[in-house]
Amino acid sequence: MSKVEWYLDFVDLDYTPGRDELIVEYYFEPNGVSPEEAAGRIASESSIGTWTTLWKLPDMAKRSMAKVFSLEKSGEGYIAKIAYPLTLFEEGNLVQLFSAIAGNIFGMKALKNLRLLDFHPPYEYLRHFKGPQYGVKGIREFMGIEDRPLTATVPKPKMGWSVDEYAEIAYELWSGGIDLLKDDENFTSFPFNRFEERVRKLYAVRDRVEAETGETKEYLINITGPAHVMEKRAQLVAAEGGQYIMIDIVVVGWSALQYMREVAEDLGLAIHAHRAMHAAFTRNPRHGISMFVLAKAARMVGVDQIHTGTAVGKMAGDYEEVKRINGFLLSEWEHIKPIFPVASGGLHPGLMPELIRLFGRDLVIQVGGGVMGHPDGPRAGAKALRDAIEAAIEGVSLEEKAKESPELKKALEKWGYLKPK
Amino acid sequence: MSKVEWYLDFVDLDYTPGRDELIVEYYFEPNGVSPEEAAGRIASESSIGTWTTLWKLPDMAKRSMAKVFSLEKSGEGYIAKIAYPLTLFEEGNLVQLFSAIAGNIFGMKALKNLRLLDFHPPYEYLRHFKGPQYGVKGIREFMGIEDRPLTATVPKPKMGWSVDEYAEIAYELWSGGIDLLKDDENFTSFPFNRFEERVRKLYAVRDRVEAETGETKEYLINITGPAHVMEKRAQLVAAEGGQYIMIDIVVVGWSALQYMREVAEDLGLAIHAHRAMHAAFTRNPRHGISMFVLAKAARMVGVDQIHTGTAVGKMAGDYEEVKRINGFLLSEWEHIKPIFPVASGGLHPGLMPELIRLFGRDLVIQVGGGVMGHPDGPRAGAKALRDAIEAAIEGVSLEEKAKESPELKKALEKWGYLKPK
Ligand SMILES: [Mg+2]
Ligand SMILES: [Mg+2]
Repeated sequence: MSKVEWYLDFVDLDYTPGRDELIVEYYFEPNGVSPEEAAGRIASESSIGTWTTLWKLPDMAKRSMAKVFSLEKSGEGYIAKIAYPLTLFEEGNLVQLFSAIAGNIFGMKALKNLRLLDFHPPYEYLRHFKGPQYGVKGIREFMGIEDRPLTATVPKPKMGWSVDEYAEIAYELWSGGIDLLKDDENFTSFPFNRFEERVRKLYAVRDRVEAETGETKEYLINITGPAHVMEKRAQLVAAEGGQYIMIDIVVVGWSALQYMREVAEDLGLAIHAHRAMHAAFTRNPRHGISMFVLAKAARMVGVDQIHTGTAVGKMAGDYEEVKRINGFLLSEWEHIKPIFPVASGGLHPGLMPELIRLFGRDLVIQVGGGVMGHPDGPRAGAKALRDAIEAAIEGVSLEEKAKESPELKKALEKWGYLKPK
Repeated sequence: MSKVEWYLDFVDLDYTPGRDELIVEYYFEPNGVSPEEAAGRIASESSIGTWTTLWKLPDMAKRSMAKVFSLEKSGEGYIAKIAYPLTLFEEGNLVQLFSAIAGNIFGMKALKNLRLLDFHPPYEYLRHFKGPQYGVKGIREFMGIEDRPLTATVPKPKMGWSVDEYAEIAYELWSGGIDLLKDDENFTSFPFNRFEERVRKLYAVRDRVEAETGETKEYLINITGPAHVMEKRAQLVAAEGGQYIMIDIVVVGWSALQYMREVAEDLGLAIHAHRAMHAAFTRNPRHGISMFVLAKAARMVGVDQIHTGTAVGKMAGDYEEVKRINGFLLSEWEHIKPIFPVASGGLHPGLMPELIRLFGRDLVIQVGGGVMGHPDGPRAGAKALRDAIEAAIEGVSLEEKAKESPELKKALEKWGYLKPK
């Protein structure tokens, strides 16, 4: 058989996938070949591969051929749905999954653009993944917060504080009402602020604030680094009675993340996932990988909360996409627990009603500048944020609330309803 | 001070960077702000961050401000060069580096596109990285191959073989003259082909071929998986006397890679890096991260060979870029050893002269279909490839060589000079 038809063997628009096949959705733009052939190549390269005729073909290979079972026009390209038999994927190994469905296909000449839109793991594949250890329910339990969003703040600027200065700021923020202190995504360990010293002194402050306020306070401490360094740092956190660890899951990569999920279980730690670098491949709507896929994979592995952007802050990512992601993260999904979406980036107290109207209460709200920039300092900023959230929940307007809260009044004067261009 | 000038504090076109600052080059397209402001935001967000005025600014933060020291027009956008003081980066932690210079900046609203073109680590930062353990010199030494390219083949199709069938093919390829057998990037461990069984039986075959041919044979075995799984698999390889491990470094992520570099040193294993998924963020010339950056970072961490694409195969990536990358990989760079570039994708014996003319001899040539598709089977395919390479080195034409090699003659008949569209 000449080599062209070969790719069409991977296309069968009448095929209905079995219950235990994994389905993947791609958007693509063919480059000098027909849509069918392009889809066939994707199916081939991401399952059993090769562009020429071979000496011999084991029938296990035949059995593992992926099938393109639907192909539709969409925008400037096409959307293909492909069914994969599970024998192509090692049980519980997400890294290997991505090396197949998000591997070399991105670099093929027969395509101008390719984007991985979604994937549907059948229960049979899914059950080799633990999913989150705590998720929404577990986190609400150990935080003792039943029905309001959680709040988090990064001590801005995200660099430069010595440990003692950092501890001072933490004291102000927690005392003011912030639930979670957060390191910024590139804040790990530096000569002026060593991790080993920070982990010891910040939890000491935390214990003091808990004793003074009676509220539970936690710290999203950044342990990002080489896998063996993260393991050591997680132990230090557990030794101080910390309940969370923060990981930049994209730069870290799936491999170390899966490892840290095991470590987290041993130490009983919840995982806060930051997505720095995701936009390098999620930003372009016609190429790369969608944030939805990233969020789904992260939930499978078992992070307990993840940044999903926000509709009213500085970053793009329009409302539907964020809403869709959050909807999924909070949905029932076999034995995989729902997890918290995290809203962050350019938020301030004046945007709370709008935010909660759009996304509801199962949310972690991270405000950086919007708290640290409060004229009266971080403690006042924290209080302003909590009052704004309380107003939004009780359905009271912010002007109204501001009468009984000078901190909120000042915040509104400074940021009003300004939307940065 | 109003908030707009703030970003301009990060811009100083008269500044000359100190010897120990790390310089980064970005390509960007502003989105509704001036180029200076856009560049300032990049500098700010990737160093000390924030978009509003703050309560207090520690002078260590002032000292750590990144500086945009040059800004030029380029294509549809601009190129900015930014200098970072080293105190922003944890020594020897590449993950944290990327969370800064390849972090959130990709998602900023003030930019339409952003691409990380290059970075220049000063010696002061560089010396916390080990670099490769073997590199070109070390590999040539343990392979006993002084002055020709190395050859590698993946038993196509990349899926479906049981271990015994795989071992048979390996026997044919090695006996035919292939130096390195290679697993494909998504070939890890499956019910029909468990890693634990494969590692035991393939090296047994290897020892037999070495005894029969007197040549050194090695196996680029794929250990990709969660970090703790990779560590276990690397041990099994070392226990069998293997010299290499293969890792899909992009899906694996920097964190586990840095960890495996330590493991590799303990076990004396060379690292073959596959780049599956890189095209998700390297493909688009106006956004994402360049392959050059990826290759440079990988060399710093210390992989011993890496795929860099090829000018004559099926994938794009034009000649200059590949030539530039390979040039760098083979260049002297402080105490960081030169490493092998790997050419792969749609190669066959007929392309060898051209390939070697373009890239020289310090190269690993990986041919999959171009060997496995030989009409007389893999052994003949392997011999055809070695003869073609030998011809290219001796400066003899392929027709000429084909007279004394029936295997090559048949290969040329099948693939001649066909360039797939
Ligand atoms: Mg941040
Ligand atoms: Mg491959």
